[in-house]
Amino acid sequence: MEPMASEASLQFPQGVHPNTSKPAMEPMASEFTQTLQRADFADLVLQGPDPPNLWYDLIGMLRKAVCYRSADKHFTLSLCAMSILHYLFPILEWSKSYSLKSFQSDTMAGLTLASLSIPQSIGYANLAKLDPQYGLYTSAVPPLLYAVMGTSRDIAIGPVAIVSLLLSSMVQKIADPAIDPALYRKMIFTVTFLTGVFQFAFGLFRLGFLVDFLSHAAITGFMGGAAIVIGLQQLKGLLGLSHFTSNTDVVSVTKAVWVSVHEPWHPENFFIGCSFFLFILGMRFIGRKNKKLFWVSAIAPVLSVVLSTLIVYMTRADNRGVKIIQNVDAGINSSSVKQINLNGPYVTECAKIALICAVIALTEAIAVGRSFSVINGYKLDGNKEMIAMGFMNVGGSLSSCYVATGSFSRTAVNFTAGCKTAVSNVVMAAIVMVTLEVLTKLLFYTPVSILASIILSALPGLINVHEVCILWKVDKMDFLTCMGSFLGVLFGSVEIGLSVAIVVSFFKVIVHSIRPQVVILGRVQGTNIFCNIKQYPMVCQTPVVLTTRIDTSFLCFINANFIRERITELVTQNLQEIRSVVLDMSNVVDIDTAGLAALEELNGELVSRGIQMAIANPGWKLVHKLKLARLVDRIGESWIFLTVGEAVEACLGNKKGVDLDC
Amino acid sequence: MEPMASEASLQFPQGVHPNTSKPAMEPMASEFTQTLQRADFADLVLQGPDPPNLWYDLIGMLRKAVCYRSADKHFTLSLCAMSILHYLFPILEWSKSYSLKSFQSDTMAGLTLASLSIPQSIGYANLAKLDPQYGLYTSAVPPLLYAVMGTSRDIAIGPVAIVSLLLSSMVQKIADPAIDPALYRKMIFTVTFLTGVFQFAFGLFRLGFLVDFLSHAAITGFMGGAAIVIGLQQLKGLLGLSHFTSNTDVVSVTKAVWVSVHEPWHPENFFIGCSFFLFILGMRFIGRKNKKLFWVSAIAPVLSVVLSTLIVYMTRADNRGVKIIQNVDAGINSSSVKQINLNGPYVTECAKIALICAVIALTEAIAVGRSFSVINGYKLDGNKEMIAMGFMNVGGSLSSCYVATGSFSRTAVNFTAGCKTAVSNVVMAAIVMVTLEVLTKLLFYTPVSILASIILSALPGLINVHEVCILWKVDKMDFLTCMGSFLGVLFGSVEIGLSVAIVVSFFKVIVHSIRPQVVILGRVQGTNIFCNIKQYPMVCQTPVVLTTRIDTSFLCFINANFIRERITELVTQNLQEIRSVVLDMSNVVDIDTAGLAALEELNGELVSRGIQMAIANPGWKLVHKLKLARLVDRIGESWIFLTVGEAVEACLGNKKGVDLDC
Repeated sequence: MEPMASEASLQFPQGVHPNTSKPAMEPMASEFTQTLQRADFADLVLQGPDPPNLWYDLIGMLRKAVCYRSADKHFTLSLCAMSILHYLFPILEWSKSYSLKSFQSDTMAGLTLASLSIPQSIGYANLAKLDPQYGLYTSAVPPLLYAVMGTSRDIAIGPVAIVSLLLSSMVQKIADPAIDPALYRKMIFTVTFLTGVFQFAFGLFRLGFLVDFLSHAAITGFMGGAAIVIGLQQLKGLLGLSHFTSNTDVVSVTKAVWVSVHEPWHPENFFIGCSFFLFILGMRFIGRKNKKLFWVSAIAPVLSVVLSTLIVYMTRADNRGVKIIQNVDAGINSSSVKQINLNGPYVTECAKIALICAVIALTEAIAVGRSFSVINGYKLDGNKEMIAMGFMNVGGSLSSCYVATGSFSRTAVNFTAGCKTAVSNVVMAAIVMVTLEVLTKLLFYTPVSILASIILSALPGLINVHEVCILWKVDKMDFLTCMGSFLGVLFGSVEIGLSVAIVVSFFKVIVHSIRPQVVILGRVQGTNIFCNIKQYPMVCQTPVVLTTRIDTSFLCFINANFIRERITELVTQNLQEIRSVVLDMSNVVDIDTAGLAALEELNGELVSRGIQMAIANPGWKLVHKLKLARLVDRIGESWIFLTVGEAVEACLGNKKGVDLDC
Repeated sequence: MEPMASEASLQFPQGVHPNTSKPAMEPMASEFTQTLQRADFADLVLQGPDPPNLWYDLIGMLRKAVCYRSADKHFTLSLCAMSILHYLFPILEWSKSYSLKSFQSDTMAGLTLASLSIPQSIGYANLAKLDPQYGLYTSAVPPLLYAVMGTSRDIAIGPVAIVSLLLSSMVQKIADPAIDPALYRKMIFTVTFLTGVFQFAFGLFRLGFLVDFLSHAAITGFMGGAAIVIGLQQLKGLLGLSHFTSNTDVVSVTKAVWVSVHEPWHPENFFIGCSFFLFILGMRFIGRKNKKLFWVSAIAPVLSVVLSTLIVYMTRADNRGVKIIQNVDAGINSSSVKQINLNGPYVTECAKIALICAVIALTEAIAVGRSFSVINGYKLDGNKEMIAMGFMNVGGSLSSCYVATGSFSRTAVNFTAGCKTAVSNVVMAAIVMVTLEVLTKLLFYTPVSILASIILSALPGLINVHEVCILWKVDKMDFLTCMGSFLGVLFGSVEIGLSVAIVVSFFKVIVHSIRPQVVILGRVQGTNIFCNIKQYPMVCQTPVVLTTRIDTSFLCFINANFIRERITELVTQNLQEIRSVVLDMSNVVDIDTAGLAALEELNGELVSRGIQMAIANPGWKLVHKLKLARLVDRIGESWIFLTVGEAVEACLGNKKGVDLDC
């Protein structure tokens, strides 16, 4: 410690600007102390207004959740209805200023999107263990519904890989698609309906924060794990296997592949799949190198489908063991209202699956939507998005679609292709519908392995190694969360991966509350600023006064005893020297009765050792509760201060004549 | 807002003590700013040492958990063994200075304790659905073991009401005591053994904080509920009923009583029970009125037993339907080693029950021990206590005892009777053993209803209405926790009550993290102190600069978006006026990657609106992670400050010429 300000510290610089008519910039706390009487200062802390109580807070939250436009104070019924309509259907807003030029851009974007969307949708339907047309259905109705209700201009709606995997892996436990495909479909539609209901409810009750429960780190790990699992699932199509495991974990899949390759198999499937996989990757490489040729990568999948179908058709390779899609039902979405079963025995199970799907689908959609809204500089209303997604999935479930959401890869293509509004989704949906009406027969000879290669080519975007490196570098706990969900998905199942992620995340929050820090503060030389002595090694500790800061925002039952013991320990270590303890409470926002009891006990212990306890800068609720619990009287009104500086001064003043180093 | 310091605020009071050789007391931050260059100040925040990383923290925690005496740096093996012995057996320490006078006091206290303990033990054995001798066994061996290992001088060890209820209500689901009492006993001993193991493990691994998970509020509610449930259970004995429900909830018990009173019953039981209940209450009233006669209330139960037994024996009332205890096995504890079953099918279930019992028993014992250690001014080591309790229960389970712990009511009697050390427990145990050897035959005619009245008379101490009133007054959430566990026990079961308490408690902690406050700060006129404008209405807000404080100690995935949105909302409300936003980060101890992402997004949003973001007083880990995530570069090194005052000054300096109100 560098001695400075030494004995002089106790001499107040009296007479320095005394009663100047214009106070100079920022007279500091100690001068302020001089001009104001001590009682006035205690007043500042202790005689402020009471904080709003629990009921007030609850009512405020409720009001915020219910009222959509609090600014509308004098509104008529029709105005109210209009504002709700405008709230629910943003299309009413933006369609007014929609121009022909925007339409041209949207049409181009929609065309590009459709060329990517059609093969992907068929592939994802395959992943969801549904017939190809269900993927196309899901690319037709939900985008139309989203276009009238959604707020994002860039998002591309349709089936996505993760949700398809989630659905098939969880629903097949209720109904096996290989044995009873009709029951399986029923369950899928029921889950989709409930997913929509949950999403709608989240939006209506402003429960957007539920989506936050899956932290970005958890999602990164989950997506990476799921991508690998999906990739492994594609081995079935790529190798043209007939028998395969229905488990998703690495061990089961590896075993299944190992067993299958020892049976007779047809390398033609593998050859077609791999060569077109390399073709798509090559096209993507060209698209990346030359931004003007990005459409090359966008149409590569549809080109692959066309070429491979032609090859198979011309060589009749299907007779030599190449698996083909065969029949795809023609015609646009039929109604599936009667297939939704809300009374059956599986409805609880379906609701559980739907809840997981709803959260995962929303997480993906909101992450996608938000990142593009930031680029384009418009505001995305999370709750509104949830309502739109909810409606879209309820509508989808009634028209033979499964869960749709915003796709990472297709949204990027949509954005790059220059979309202006959600009209690009409408154009895409129209093209998909035309395909469903006219072109399904052409898909007869499309080899199954080409779908596997299209899905595989979409996976690298889900594995974010760079992000994992950042997590490792910046936050080890987040890295743990990420790896937990990654390994959980990989070696357990999607549910295990998600559970691990949520448990680790909440464990992190709880541990933070259980083991808060109690830091020792020191004075920045020549100022009234007190800082953590470890963070700022140049500060010097005040002698005879132990100045500590309690680093938790909620002094409660799980940490109160720990904090009390930690402070007692600090006092015991320097028992000879210490005559007062200043607790800087500026971080403590709230306290519960256990925290109050711990403070009282601490005060008792300190008093029994002849040490004075002082409290500096207590928060609003803290002051209120200290008063309610009559702790203010026990500690002494005169030992509660606004700043640490004053508290230390008072403690020093109390023990004048001691030797000061600092 | 009172305008003050107006335009002058921008003129730095230059030349006021420039280069004074002895700096005056506490030159404040703004002067400090002048003498130091801006770069030096950024250095203070940004170029401090790195905080200890996760591994360092973990190793530190581990070391703290393992090393008992870190001060012993150069120790030999024998010294180490001695220190461990002294640690484990505090009797080695205090027996050296044990005097005859202390022994006299302890003997008196032990005698008083025994007179209360014997009838209570028989009653609690009845509550635990065991034969009377098992209660006496539990008052014999565990107190002896505790005496050599425990640190508390006042605590009275033995069976207690709550644990007896817990055991019987949970173990009877595995084995019905009415059908197979031998299996039931086996299960009880197994649970007791595992309880001891858990308690020992808690102490060894310094997991004392697990006991804190049951907050005081939860325990208050739980105890109150359990007391009522125990009281209702006593109706069986009091009314002399033969058939009774094994459920503990109010509804089942009321039904059972309703059904039973319609069958023929013997009012003599009720008459004896009630009259002695009133006798005990009367004696207690006398004891309370006159402190010298406190022994009257202590011996009232044993007197009731003697009197009622005599009355029944002389009137042969047992022939007229008065239920009597009948045979009590004579002889001190027999070994029960062979009855402990750790391989059976019920071992998981037993472990679950044991965990609950271990926590509840420890909570009660530590609460009792701590409150009396505070009165007598000695230190109670929580971890040591847990080790002692663990040994005591393991030892107990091997000698036919069930779970023992510190009793509230008997400890108070022990203390009032003037005990000095744990020797009073030894005296009590000796008397109980003599009773077991010699006096059990005399208990043949003791009416069962007298046991009910003794238990009933001990219950009022468990219901703490005063405490509940304080909870309601001080903390509504704690009141909710309390009522949750109270009603859970009353209308559900003990497990439901405990689950409700734990869920509500943790919900409280999580909600606190999910919805932190973002408060607007204002300057205390004429100082550099910034306070919450709602808590201190006299402060005035700086114009053009929005000064906010983030009131959470962990800016993480569950609150990052909320905080970002809240600040954006505050900015939007005053968009015309605001040119800079100062984030006071002094409360933010840690941040995760989601928090960093939110800060980055917030910075992006503000920059896009032409608003400068500044960070004041970031915590140690926060600074480190801001640097790691390269956020420092994006926000700008020169916009990170040590104090809010400087940050506001810099923001104002940046926008000179604006009109200042404050």
